[in-house]
Amino acid sequence: MSTHGDANALLAEIESIGVDPERGGYTRPVFSEPELELREWFSRHAAARGLTVETDGNGILWAWWDADGASRRDVIVTGSHLDSVPGGGNFDGPLGVASALAAVDLLRDRGIAPVRPLAVAVFPEEEGSRFGIACLGSRLLAGVVAPEKVRALRDEGGRSYAEVSAGVGADPATIGPDLERLSAISAFVELHVEQGRGLADLDEPVALAGAIIAHGRWHVRIEGRGDHAGATRMADRQDPVVVAAETIRSLRVHTLVVDDARGTVGRIKVTPGGTNVIASAVDLWLDVRHRSEEAVRRIVSEVAAATGRAAEAEGCVATVTEQSFSPTVLFDPSLRERMQGVLPASPVLDTGAGHDAGVLAEIIPTGMLFVRNPTGSSHTPAETAEPDDVAAGVTALADVLEHLLTR
Amino acid sequence: MSTHGDANALLAEIESIGVDPERGGYTRPVFSEPELELREWFSRHAAARGLTVETDGNGILWAWWDADGASRRDVIVTGSHLDSVPGGGNFDGPLGVASALAAVDLLRDRGIAPVRPLAVAVFPEEEGSRFGIACLGSRLLAGVVAPEKVRALRDEGGRSYAEVSAGVGADPATIGPDLERLSAISAFVELHVEQGRGLADLDEPVALAGAIIAHGRWHVRIEGRGDHAGATRMADRQDPVVVAAETIRSLRVHTLVVDDARGTVGRIKVTPGGTNVIASAVDLWLDVRHRSEEAVRRIVSEVAAATGRAAEAEGCVATVTEQSFSPTVLFDPSLRERMQGVLPASPVLDTGAGHDAGVLAEIIPTGMLFVRNPTGSSHTPAETAEPDDVAAGVTALADVLEHLLTR
Repeated sequence: MSTHGDANALLAEIESIGVDPERGGYTRPVFSEPELELREWFSRHAAARGLTVETDGNGILWAWWDADGASRRDVIVTGSHLDSVPGGGNFDGPLGVASALAAVDLLRDRGIAPVRPLAVAVFPEEEGSRFGIACLGSRLLAGVVAPEKVRALRDEGGRSYAEVSAGVGADPATIGPDLERLSAISAFVELHVEQGRGLADLDEPVALAGAIIAHGRWHVRIEGRGDHAGATRMADRQDPVVVAAETIRSLRVHTLVVDDARGTVGRIKVTPGGTNVIASAVDLWLDVRHRSEEAVRRIVSEVAAATGRAAEAEGCVATVTEQSFSPTVLFDPSLRERMQGVLPASPVLDTGAGHDAGVLAEIIPTGMLFVRNPTGSSHTPAETAEPDDVAAGVTALADVLEHLLTR
Repeated sequence: MSTHGDANALLAEIESIGVDPERGGYTRPVFSEPELELREWFSRHAAARGLTVETDGNGILWAWWDADGASRRDVIVTGSHLDSVPGGGNFDGPLGVASALAAVDLLRDRGIAPVRPLAVAVFPEEEGSRFGIACLGSRLLAGVVAPEKVRALRDEGGRSYAEVSAGVGADPATIGPDLERLSAISAFVELHVEQGRGLADLDEPVALAGAIIAHGRWHVRIEGRGDHAGATRMADRQDPVVVAAETIRSLRVHTLVVDDARGTVGRIKVTPGGTNVIASAVDLWLDVRHRSEEAVRRIVSEVAAATGRAAEAEGCVATVTEQSFSPTVLFDPSLRERMQGVLPASPVLDTGAGHDAGVLAEIIPTGMLFVRNPTGSSHTPAETAEPDDVAAGVTALADVLEHLLTR
């Protein structure tokens, strides 16, 4: 099957990589075997298109289409990521990468003459599902996370980022800000499957991004006293699971009272985790989002206070630590205006999901395209996109890139 | 170091086996490498004492001290288990096994002439921490759990009991009731570290068991709809984590209103388990205990009802399945009377913990000895026993066995 200009055919090639038989869908953590296989797949396709593939010090892949005689300044970048959440879909990330490759084909078919270089980028650990910090690759590039902090991050198996990245042949010593590279970029446009029902409700295939609402994640650690579930009287217990239940309840309550806020606990770790054992500790994580940063902070502070009160009542100790915080991102208005000129029929939608484009938007002009997801589901195997909409996304991306590369 | 007659020295030999660096203490699930190593250790010590070691069809180890000329009828059995909960101590189980070996040494030093055989037994999966059913070995032996059900049980990694046991050289086809073996036993006495503060409060080293209070475990499965934590409006969510929090809260409330009841959630599994993913399902387990079986059932039924209401409100589906139920066990009164005759100073204590002795008490005369645990903690690394108390336990066990073997 030819993949020329066809993102659907490109995605079909990777639909057996990283399949998760337990959860359904795909589990492709950064630097895992499936993610490395996807990076290989990308490099192969980029090379087959005559693009020059390079891995930078942060593990970001860059595939260069250098305009004749143009130096690497004033670069237009597109791309996305290949890692997934546990049990995610095949579109979140790979759609943007496959669409970028297909758009390169379309642009060449059109015989355009770019006056500046194009790069297709693949960012590692966008989901933060292995090392706990979302958009880790772009944050490193932009210098908004300290390299020494990242080197020490550990995955659930206790392996550090430094150890894991060295294990796949990267050099953990080279991670960190690369402002020279960033300053050579004049625009970054990321295409992504939509993660809500906006386009489905509007009956449109493609949208432009307006803003990414503010979001962050907090680690809640509750320490109690492990003991025997049968032999320990209720009055003698210091059970962190009971406190965790109150944290979850409190997050729901304090999120519901703020219009359009979102609050989630999706990850809980009980130590030691035996049915007949009172836990000694619980770790859980809060994900909170709202267009107003202040609203996000207020919700987290209410939940932290409720957790503290419950912990005190139970004789436990609770700590709430911010793991990441992304302020509201308003994508570059003048780039969006240009994109709207190219795609006048496409609506503008906000999103509740974080993206590498959101991180880079703080430094360089950035825009996003969203492709309709009929289920509106995301981070699950139910996430989807119709082939016609995928093709419409590739065309829209090619149209935007053509404009940016030739004017 | 000689281990002759010295349970402390025997326990010292195994204190590096199955150490859990993450949780602290020991993690020795049945048929895991550490548990198999402990079984090897036991078999070696039993053989060194001239005991004949046999593994029966249920994976129970039996080390026989056959009285001269006695056939294997009217057998006295002692022993315990070697598996542990995740992050448990070195006494829960191994103390009873080590004390049995040491007691054999004492009895021989005393030159007693047994008129009936003694067997030291080691039961697999007492904790139920791998396959979810506590006292699995004794339940199989006693015929109170169906072999076909057990063969299909799966551990967290998805491996079945049949697969795992075949992997360690056992024959899963041979598991099941062995009434011929049971009917040859006239008494079973299990020594165990105490799992509460009873002896510490009374300032005594050793107690006899009165009753095991009724207890059971229930699996609660809550299914919702996985989705993106940022892009999904609160009104569109079907989040099973929120329902699980209500289950935990409800168990605490309904346990507290019943005097001396115990209710615990110590194990929670969130699927898929990503910080920025609304869960698609939560599994959690209830452990509920009370001297009155009816009180246990009432608590569970209240919690199931509250879970059902919360699930309905959230658009989730919840099921509550009984995984095991152990009625109140009153240990054989006439055996206890004989034990009290031998140990007149020892108090009689109830326990909230289940034991293989409790399962076998339904079929054969059974008694238990408890050794003081100064912290009162159990199923944690804080569980302990003083060397002098361990020695007192061995002496008490030897005294009881001498009486049972010679009268």
